[in-house]
Amino acid sequence: MTYVYDFDHVHPRPPMELKDLLGGKGANLAEMTSVLGLPVPPGFTISTDACRGYLAAGGAWPEGLDAEVAEHRARLEATMGKTIGDPTDPLLVSVRSGAKFSMPGMMDTVLNLGLNDESVKGLAAQTSDERFANDSYRRFIQMYGKIVLDIPAEKFDHVFEAKRAECGAASDADIPASVLGEVIEAYKGIVLEATGAPFPQAAADQLAGAIEAVFRSWNSPRAKAYRQRERIPDDLGTAVNVQAMVFGNRDNNSGTGVGFTRNPATGEAGAYGDFLINAQGEDVVAGIRNTLPLSAIADTMPAVHTELMGIFERLELHYRDMLDTEFTIEQGKLWMLQTRVGKRTGAAALRIAVALTEDPTINLSHEEAVQRVSPEHLDQVLHPQFQKTDAAVLGTGLAASPGAGVGKAYFDADRCADAADRGEQVVLVRQETSPEDVHGMVVAEAILTSRGGLVSHAAVVARGWGKPAVCGAESLDIGASSFTTADGTVVNEGDVISIDGSTGKVYLGAVPLAEGSVPDEFEVILGWADVIRKGKLGVRANADTGEDAARARAFGAEGIGLCRTEHMFLGDRLPVVRKMILANTPDAEHEALAELRVVQKADFADVLKAMDGLPVTIRLLDPPLHEFLPSVEELLVEEATGRLDTEGMELLKAARKWQEQNPMLGTRGVRLGIIKDGLYRMQVRALMEAACELKKAGGNPIIEIMIPLVVTFPELDLCRGWVQDEVATVCAEQGVDIDVMIGTMIETPRAAVRADEIAEAAEFFSFGTNDLTQMTFGFSRDDVAPILEAYLAEGLLKVDPFESIDQRGVGELVEMGVARGLSTNPKLKLGVCGEHGGDPDSIAFFYKVGLHYVSCSPFRVPIARLAAALSVLDVGGPHASA
Amino acid sequence: MTYVYDFDHVHPRPPMELKDLLGGKGANLAEMTSVLGLPVPPGFTISTDACRGYLAAGGAWPEGLDAEVAEHRARLEATMGKTIGDPTDPLLVSVRSGAKFSMPGMMDTVLNLGLNDESVKGLAAQTSDERFANDSYRRFIQMYGKIVLDIPAEKFDHVFEAKRAECGAASDADIPASVLGEVIEAYKGIVLEATGAPFPQAAADQLAGAIEAVFRSWNSPRAKAYRQRERIPDDLGTAVNVQAMVFGNRDNNSGTGVGFTRNPATGEAGAYGDFLINAQGEDVVAGIRNTLPLSAIADTMPAVHTELMGIFERLELHYRDMLDTEFTIEQGKLWMLQTRVGKRTGAAALRIAVALTEDPTINLSHEEAVQRVSPEHLDQVLHPQFQKTDAAVLGTGLAASPGAGVGKAYFDADRCADAADRGEQVVLVRQETSPEDVHGMVVAEAILTSRGGLVSHAAVVARGWGKPAVCGAESLDIGASSFTTADGTVVNEGDVISIDGSTGKVYLGAVPLAEGSVPDEFEVILGWADVIRKGKLGVRANADTGEDAARARAFGAEGIGLCRTEHMFLGDRLPVVRKMILANTPDAEHEALAELRVVQKADFADVLKAMDGLPVTIRLLDPPLHEFLPSVEELLVEEATGRLDTEGMELLKAARKWQEQNPMLGTRGVRLGIIKDGLYRMQVRALMEAACELKKAGGNPIIEIMIPLVVTFPELDLCRGWVQDEVATVCAEQGVDIDVMIGTMIETPRAAVRADEIAEAAEFFSFGTNDLTQMTFGFSRDDVAPILEAYLAEGLLKVDPFESIDQRGVGELVEMGVARGLSTNPKLKLGVCGEHGGDPDSIAFFYKVGLHYVSCSPFRVPIARLAAALSVLDVGGPHASA
Repeated sequence: MTYVYDFDHVHPRPPMELKDLLGGKGANLAEMTSVLGLPVPPGFTISTDACRGYLAAGGAWPEGLDAEVAEHRARLEATMGKTIGDPTDPLLVSVRSGAKFSMPGMMDTVLNLGLNDESVKGLAAQTSDERFANDSYRRFIQMYGKIVLDIPAEKFDHVFEAKRAECGAASDADIPASVLGEVIEAYKGIVLEATGAPFPQAAADQLAGAIEAVFRSWNSPRAKAYRQRERIPDDLGTAVNVQAMVFGNRDNNSGTGVGFTRNPATGEAGAYGDFLINAQGEDVVAGIRNTLPLSAIADTMPAVHTELMGIFERLELHYRDMLDTEFTIEQGKLWMLQTRVGKRTGAAALRIAVALTEDPTINLSHEEAVQRVSPEHLDQVLHPQFQKTDAAVLGTGLAASPGAGVGKAYFDADRCADAADRGEQVVLVRQETSPEDVHGMVVAEAILTSRGGLVSHAAVVARGWGKPAVCGAESLDIGASSFTTADGTVVNEGDVISIDGSTGKVYLGAVPLAEGSVPDEFEVILGWADVIRKGKLGVRANADTGEDAARARAFGAEGIGLCRTEHMFLGDRLPVVRKMILANTPDAEHEALAELRVVQKADFADVLKAMDGLPVTIRLLDPPLHEFLPSVEELLVEEATGRLDTEGMELLKAARKWQEQNPMLGTRGVRLGIIKDGLYRMQVRALMEAACELKKAGGNPIIEIMIPLVVTFPELDLCRGWVQDEVATVCAEQGVDIDVMIGTMIETPRAAVRADEIAEAAEFFSFGTNDLTQMTFGFSRDDVAPILEAYLAEGLLKVDPFESIDQRGVGELVEMGVARGLSTNPKLKLGVCGEHGGDPDSIAFFYKVGLHYVSCSPFRVPIARLAAALSVLDVGGPHASA
Repeated sequence: MTYVYDFDHVHPRPPMELKDLLGGKGANLAEMTSVLGLPVPPGFTISTDACRGYLAAGGAWPEGLDAEVAEHRARLEATMGKTIGDPTDPLLVSVRSGAKFSMPGMMDTVLNLGLNDESVKGLAAQTSDERFANDSYRRFIQMYGKIVLDIPAEKFDHVFEAKRAECGAASDADIPASVLGEVIEAYKGIVLEATGAPFPQAAADQLAGAIEAVFRSWNSPRAKAYRQRERIPDDLGTAVNVQAMVFGNRDNNSGTGVGFTRNPATGEAGAYGDFLINAQGEDVVAGIRNTLPLSAIADTMPAVHTELMGIFERLELHYRDMLDTEFTIEQGKLWMLQTRVGKRTGAAALRIAVALTEDPTINLSHEEAVQRVSPEHLDQVLHPQFQKTDAAVLGTGLAASPGAGVGKAYFDADRCADAADRGEQVVLVRQETSPEDVHGMVVAEAILTSRGGLVSHAAVVARGWGKPAVCGAESLDIGASSFTTADGTVVNEGDVISIDGSTGKVYLGAVPLAEGSVPDEFEVILGWADVIRKGKLGVRANADTGEDAARARAFGAEGIGLCRTEHMFLGDRLPVVRKMILANTPDAEHEALAELRVVQKADFADVLKAMDGLPVTIRLLDPPLHEFLPSVEELLVEEATGRLDTEGMELLKAARKWQEQNPMLGTRGVRLGIIKDGLYRMQVRALMEAACELKKAGGNPIIEIMIPLVVTFPELDLCRGWVQDEVATVCAEQGVDIDVMIGTMIETPRAAVRADEIAEAAEFFSFGTNDLTQMTFGFSRDDVAPILEAYLAEGLLKVDPFESIDQRGVGELVEMGVARGLSTNPKLKLGVCGEHGGDPDSIAFFYKVGLHYVSCSPFRVPIARLAAALSVLDVGGPHASA
């Protein structure tokens, strides 16, 4: 087993592609050294294999690693003409972690390794600067003590501050060498006391300790939490880079800086960065001294500036992207310490991607340009974000719908709507929302709930409208007209709060907005993305009204994948719907259904018109009937207090009848259709009448009727018969011929398992991954928040399965559904209309398992278009670029 | 394709094994004819293939069938020396359906086929009995008209009654031949009017019509309903038997009867049956004339009697079982018309099975004897049944727990318990039950609910206690102190009702009980069953208390497969449990847990003692916490009416906090264990303290700790760590060494799909098929009743999936769980503890997919032992015997 590679090792493939083995930092150092021949201080990388071996063996040192390190160290010393720990002219090295993906949560760097009681004198002699040598040694002990030996930093800080005060120095730089000598002795005492052993003097011990510390840091709580947040697998391990030190703090011909090859905030062309003369890297980052722009290098060291600009150009040409670099100038000599593809804002990502295609030397292809933009970048430009803020965080919930919103808190949909009518900016705050709250939701700037997960009613509706929402903020105790935070702060109705739906944070007061702006390059990139994915993965929208449908079409949706007809049962239709529910004769029920048909027809006409010429999937009524009735609790309280009239008593009786212990698993979807068997016929009739009128008016309605919650073939077959019957009847009545596809949702585990049978009665499947996730896990979307909070915190789940599809569980059922469905019906059309249809990771999965389209809320359509293209290019996943 | 087989056709296998092809009746006629050489009127069987072909082609006549029928008809005519329809000496035939399984719901027999306007005269001449001939013809037209031509029977009846009245005949037999001639003419008129065509005169037409009617009858509503109830597949089709007629009504040397080779009610040895002199088969069944015992044949026709007894003996020896026969004597000549294995009562089944092993000529093996008894037989002897009754049926629900119970209706658990204290026999009537009702359930003779399915709380608890229950009787509107039936009958508190938990019927008043008695042969048969299944399929019980455990052991349970510890949280423990839930400091919670630990330990000690030396699977707390709190609805009403004190307010707050939209998919099982992380440790500690004490006292506790509702490996791994930790701690404290197995339930679809990962942290799996069914279908056990009612009625489901496992859906997930679990952990122990563990069909399935044991309620243990043995003998299924 080879564990250690010099930076100039000749690999069989370009090292920049070997991040799995060398980590990101090591791969790029090797690329700069061995491929580009750039000035990089020599060194070597201990591969991720070594770390994985160490961790897998429960912390046992990998066999042979010591010998390899010794060999490469000897080679490094030979190259540098110096020896680590040499008492006359010591070589100093840095030890840095470097995982495949950049992980700020991991171990810091150990600098100046190699100094000890003897070599510090050699460094002083060589640099003729005892103060520099002592300061380097005390920094090393402090860093090593903290990072490798786990000694609290305060212990060192106390000693240092006491000594500085004692000698009356104004700043650290004024502390004389002799006092620094005393600090060194005191530091060594701290190490002895804390670890029971003296500070290691042997170079090999120092090196081994630092390497092991890097290995261990992979499993630090900080690193684990970061990986979890960023969905980085836990089993990658980190590499370790050992590199000869260079010093930017030797003199005024020295310095250090960080540089981007283009502006990462705006995407503007031209180098961009910060530079400090006579300083070490940490000084730039610490922000203690005012940095200079990179152009300032030209004033004092014009040759170095020219060299750096040339390197930037070569890097961009080589990496075909914008780069982020770290460099040091030691006594006029430029050294490159690091490079990587630079992080950037959404606007910058779009501009850079297009600009690189226009650069005649780089000449980026459209496919590559699309790969330079991530879904998160689009999210940034599509939704307003808060500026950085110190506002008090009242609590944190699930980031349920991205964007930022500010308004007065209202705790009731009616009062919320009234306040909006008065011209107030409002935020609707509820324990949870239900269809009865939608009039409050529609006028709100943002929505906040204390219950429910990412597919709760509030979350789904908010995303559908592109409205910021934080859901399941468990720590907030939300009452009828106020809420109390965990620390006892009370927010009353009318108080202003700010909701960050991208982070899940809730702030007190108005946090200023940094409005997102959509640059011109947005449409260019999405146009290229569309070319890539066309014929491979379609993107539709979930839209329930003509307005939604028109918006979705404007965002580039190629049809409607889910039109939830229950939204046509709310608002002013509610009395009619209740009439149908309360009907106790077939005639009364028919009458109510006929009334509903008229309004449904108008709704369908709007939707079909907005999507004329594109397919529209209409889902027949899905929710349980109690959702259209007042709550039993409220009615019972009214009854107990004598406030219930005759109509109320009727409603109570109906609410009782339709009340269920677990409505999610109750009488809904096709079950309701079968029990109330005029319902689906009415809906189909209304739909077909609207379609026929559109067709007669010269339009081209393309209709797919979808039957929800099917578990068996006979259910679907029965309803399919009704639908075909109504379609034929209406078409005959109207003298119009319209082809209608009939299909079903696959949203129960049983439907996925028996997709072979069900496919015999279906022309299409649409995977309802919300419900499929609920039933596969046994997680109620409305109740899951406290469970997910605990599970994500404990690492029992890596990711909220309602946010990104659980590929190994729910995903396997989707795959099974696809394979079995196609086994009996090879022409089956396959899509997904759960909330996962807008999640980039899930989209990549759906493409992989063979779905033909995804459907998501209108505001997610651009993101889905990009994610679909990235999936096609086989680079999906969160870390595709930048 | 061969469609038609003569009774004396030589098949490659014994015809009795060819029921798939020949149907039951045809197979046995062929067996009697071709193997046993018994006197059977000759004939032929049209195979089930013909029927299937006819039905599959949508009613098109199978090609070649006519020619085959003609050929075999000619052969039959040659054998008999007569021709069908011959005007001088006609051959008459019967046409009977005969499916693989006996189906009383199908077509009746058509007798006397072959008579027409000419041949009736030949029959009269041959028999010198015009009256007989005319009566035969008019019966034929009537039967053919009704069965083949679908003419309402009343039309014929009206004419016949009018003619009888007209001629002043006292009985049918007194109607003279001439009047019967008029009846014939009138009947022919009815046929012409109803069908637009004259009554068919050609023998071939009559025969083809009758055969097609049998084919069609396979899909009659009656037949479909029967198949559904009896779980007979819809695609078997029926055979048709055409047989030469013999006449038991020719003279006083003629007669007809049905005979059993042993008493089907008691199992006593000796022929048993009914006989009528000078009569046709229908007369025996119709019960118009008083029948004689078989021994009466000896008085008038001793030779025939001797022959019949000889045939019975040969049949028993040949079939190795008790037979049911039909026979006719025509002018002193005995003809066997049918035989089949006889239906029998449970007590008879047990006695006959044992007796046949003791019969030196039959010498039945123990394996065969076990196969002569079905689970339904055991059910009969274990549970009291109602006698036949004319009592008014108030409504019908699910047959949720077998047996019959009578008592005064009480609508509240407290009042029910009070009434029982006063010595009343009571029936608890509730919309649905919850753990708060158990004190009422425990004293009730029977339980009735209007909501919930076969795994609802009421059903599960009732079965656990062997108490009759009808659940989900949707048509009853159950209020606070009365219920109203669909037809408006009101039953008030205190009214006596009778509950038949074996049929689902609810009667008004007290229906007399026919107490079940357990014959001595019960233990003999079960002992043989145990020998057969030992080492192949174990049987455990679900038991929560020492009492249950002792009962289960007495019933032959080999351990406990599920001990639900939540039952230890009820009753007098409820205040302590609520203290734990309401605790708002860790100390208060610890204190409450410590209190609970003491009582739990005592409970565990009882259970372990009762099962000493046998494995006991303890499931850590599973239900959501709100089950231990009063209902939010009730508390809200109390609050609204000012009746809620401070403690009540606290309870309301807690109930609100733990209230869930879909508790089935909420914070329960391992999720609760993780969120309230002292709970499982407390339970394990209590258990292990009890176990250590038992061990110290010389006992041998065998413990399996089961963690419920797991969906991922990390969840189980985390809890496993806690359990191991507590086990080790208590064992160390007590200085006792006890091996404990740790496993999990597989009850979510995700756990089944990812069983490979989960098995790495589990020593055993117990499939929780109740929840697995709920989640796979998306059927809430508490809400499913109206859905199932509609689905079973519409044929959308063949069987309630909570009663018998859905093999193609849920079952496939079980199979997947088994295979994947074993793939990573080949030593995994596999069991099932859902209610399906007591269902014979499900037991056969579980054996097939490789489970090691089933666990069911104590009262089902004998049935499971038998079903397990039958599964091992590979003859499971509902129609294994009789």
